[in-house]
Amino acid sequence: MTGKFISFEGGEGAGKSTQIARLAARLRAAGRAVTETREPGGTPGAEAIRALLVSGTADRWDAITEALLMNAARADHVTRVIRPALAAGQVVLCDRYVDSTLVYQGQAGDLSALRQLHKYATGNLWPDLTLWLDLPVKQGLIRASTRGDSGRFEAKGLAFHERVRAGFAALAAAEPARVMRVDASGDEEAVAERVWGAVAWRL
Amino acid sequence: MTGKFISFEGGEGAGKSTQIARLAARLRAAGRAVTETREPGGTPGAEAIRALLVSGTADRWDAITEALLMNAARADHVTRVIRPALAAGQVVLCDRYVDSTLVYQGQAGDLSALRQLHKYATGNLWPDLTLWLDLPVKQGLIRASTRGDSGRFEAKGLAFHERVRAGFAALAAAEPARVMRVDASGDEEAVAERVWGAVAWRL
Repeated sequence: MTGKFISFEGGEGAGKSTQIARLAARLRAAGRAVTETREPGGTPGAEAIRALLVSGTADRWDAITEALLMNAARADHVTRVIRPALAAGQVVLCDRYVDSTLVYQGQAGDLSALRQLHKYATGNLWPDLTLWLDLPVKQGLIRASTRGDSGRFEAKGLAFHERVRAGFAALAAAEPARVMRVDASGDEEAVAERVWGAVAWRL
Repeated sequence: MTGKFISFEGGEGAGKSTQIARLAARLRAAGRAVTETREPGGTPGAEAIRALLVSGTADRWDAITEALLMNAARADHVTRVIRPALAAGQVVLCDRYVDSTLVYQGQAGDLSALRQLHKYATGNLWPDLTLWLDLPVKQGLIRASTRGDSGRFEAKGLAFHERVRAGFAALAAAEPARVMRVDASGDEEAVAERVWGAVAWRL
């Protein structure tokens, strides 16, 4: 059986971790081996790099340094977790991957340079399928409030979150065969059914 | 006055830090403003990345992850220390820079990819002059022993140090206008005179 690599993308509050847990459970019930992982992180080394990325003030790193650190964490994660799991025939579900870097770090600059960097870091490993959990920015803010996380969400400003959403929309338009938009509004069950519909026929 | 960027390279025991301190003193006595710095490191962020690079077991990072971390540290260092010092007309003396990455990480792979990465990380900032302090490997080992550091030197094996020396020799041959070999054998004073001879007419 061939492994499959599925990444989940989307803004804050879109429900990525919830949907990954649900999909993993459903795949396992169907007899598939599943690796659930996340970025930045997923290995001890990458988690140590993640700690550098998320600590300190917002201007601790400039966009280029941040992109290099993200790609260092990703290189470790791909080599030690994702590629071995795929080689063993597993389904890999990853909370954020290259598209987050293209959208977040790409706001500062050059997308083609970021794609070159990805090629170097990962041996050009792209997901078989990327599910973009899309939610209107104001609904994301409401969900973030519900879990007591609205301060961090609001600190970046609505315009930032709108740019992120537009960034994912542009990637979905540019690579329709890989990046699929999933309507993330409504309740968990409904979104889980949409995710299952997108995934099931590909496995 | 235009800034000048001088990097010092060479294997362990070649005397880079000693010679940087001597050259800095002599340049200051001649009225030049000097920034002494080192890699990996040179800024709080880059020192934090350095801590990741030097801790843990030797196989903690693969060559690509290591190269990405080195370049992340270098991006921070170039943006926050080296470029501002050059813009202020200073002489920047840096203990290791891109050539160390080409020689050490380049043993595992693709030099042209490493040059691309350097371009991305630094905006293609190369030293005006690189002084390669060259010492036969066995003399380096003797110096390392003198300062109680022979265990670390020997752990890598003589063949490793010979490959490093050959790597620097290849860079000096490929870029003779930038990379100058300095005979690092003999006493500190004699080496300092050779360094001064290489630097003085360029300033």
